[in-house]
Parts: sequence; structure tokens; C-alpha cells
Amino acid sequence: MHHSRLSNFVIDCQTQDLDAATAFWSQALGRAATPASPDSPTYRELAPRGDEPTLLLQRVDHPSRIHLDIESDDLDAEVERLEALGAKRIAYVKRWWVMEAPTGHRFCVVRPQSGPLEGRANVWDGEGR
Amino acid sequence: MHHSRLSNFVIDCQTQDLDAATAFWSQALGRAATPASPDSPTYRELAPRGDEPTLLLQRVDHPSRIHLDIESDDLDAEVERLEALGAKRIAYVKRWWVMEAPTGHRFCVVRPQSGPLEGRANVWDGEGR
Repeated sequence: MHHSRLSNFVIDCQTQDLDAATAFWSQALGRAATPASPDSPTYRELAPRGDEPTLLLQRVDHPSRIHLDIESDDLDAEVERLEALGAKRIAYVKRWWVMEAPTGHRFCVVRPQSGPLEGRANVWDGEGR
Repeated sequence: MHHSRLSNFVIDCQTQDLDAATAFWSQALGRAATPASPDSPTYRELAPRGDEPTLLLQRVDHPSRIHLDIESDDLDAEVERLEALGAKRIAYVKRWWVMEAPTGHRFCVVRPQSGPLEGRANVWDGEGR
């Protein structure tokens, strides 16, 4: 048995100026940006509301897009479940899997982002569901 | 004075089979899909949680991507506010504006999607903020 849920939307920005990108989206959406951290040169966070998926900005080299992340407490089981639904593994990067949906969208399967998922995520049994 | 807020994430799917695309994302995210409606041949909705942005699927002809929508009770004022932040108008389609962010992302400015925005959206005065 494992858990998973939609955890993040990531606004991937092909830019050398992540602070300018963050300023635009922060003002466009009316959400405060988490102050830049020297430990996170490629990420910024916009304030979420309630328990909704987190909204991140990421500096990337590929063309700008938005992708989503699924968080899970068992990466292997979750990736296998998604493969059974038709998704493909693209690459394991640092601590997460990059996958591609049958619809062509790239997305990531990441570890729990804010504590245990019990009680606030989907529960899947060992048969891939 | 007008209001706006992030209202929808739209998973744009370049596919002839929107039901198959919906089945994948419904199972991947563990969210029920709104039954197909003959009135909406190009849209499906995945069940939201609480007051979070709605998650839609749309059948499109361009390459698959995810875009976001900002809802507002004054389209003209909101589009002008976003232009002042650096976004550009691309086209007015049916009832909404397609815009492009300085980061290169296309997004839409749409009318209120689920009732009045007072009390649950950003408030902007007439000076563009």
C-alpha cells in the first residue's frame, strides 16, 4: 500500500533572471513570493492557499512551460502504477522521477513535500491501484 | 476597483481521444472526472479539493502543454493591469483574452468561473494595482 497526490505546479521559466520572472507571476496572481534563498538558486515559491497544490517557479534551460508533480511515499510503487496507466519513465534526477504521460506531458514523481501523506492523499494497494 | 485570482489549470491535450486522456489523468491524480457532456466536446473537469484552482482537460490542436487561467470581474481592467506588468495580448477568443507572460507562457484571462469574486480574490484599484 502506498499514497500519492498532486503536490506542485511548477512554472518552468527559460530565463537568466528568475527574480524578474517571480516578480511578474507574484503580481499577476497576487501571491507573495518566498524570499530568494542562496540554497535555492533555481527555485522560488508563491504562497499557497489552504491545502492546494504548491505553486513553484523554476529556472530552466528548456523552453518555458508548466509541469505538475505527484508526491508519493513509495516512488517505485507509484512509478510502476503510472507505467501501468500508460506513462513512461524518462529519467531519474537527483531525488525524483521524470515521466511522460500518454498525452505527451512531462511530469515528476517526487517524495512527500510536506510531511506524511496518510489521511490527505490517494491510497493505492499493491496491485497497482 | 476590480478582482482577480488564479482560477484554473488547464491540461491541454493534443489528442483525438479526450476520454482516454481524461482517464489517464483522472487515475494518475486520483480525482474523479466530470462525466462527458455533449455540450462540452473539448473540455473535461477533474474534481477539485476545497477552494483550490480547478483542474481542466482540453482537447487542442497545438502541442500538449499546461496553461493557467486568471478569472476577473473586469476583463479590460485586468488585461491592462497585466500589460503594465509586462504581459502581451495575443487574441480575444469567444469570451476570454489569451495573453503571453514575459516568461513566454501563454495564459488566459477569463470571466468569473463560479460566482462573485468579492471576499475570495485579489482586489486591485484603478491605478493598475
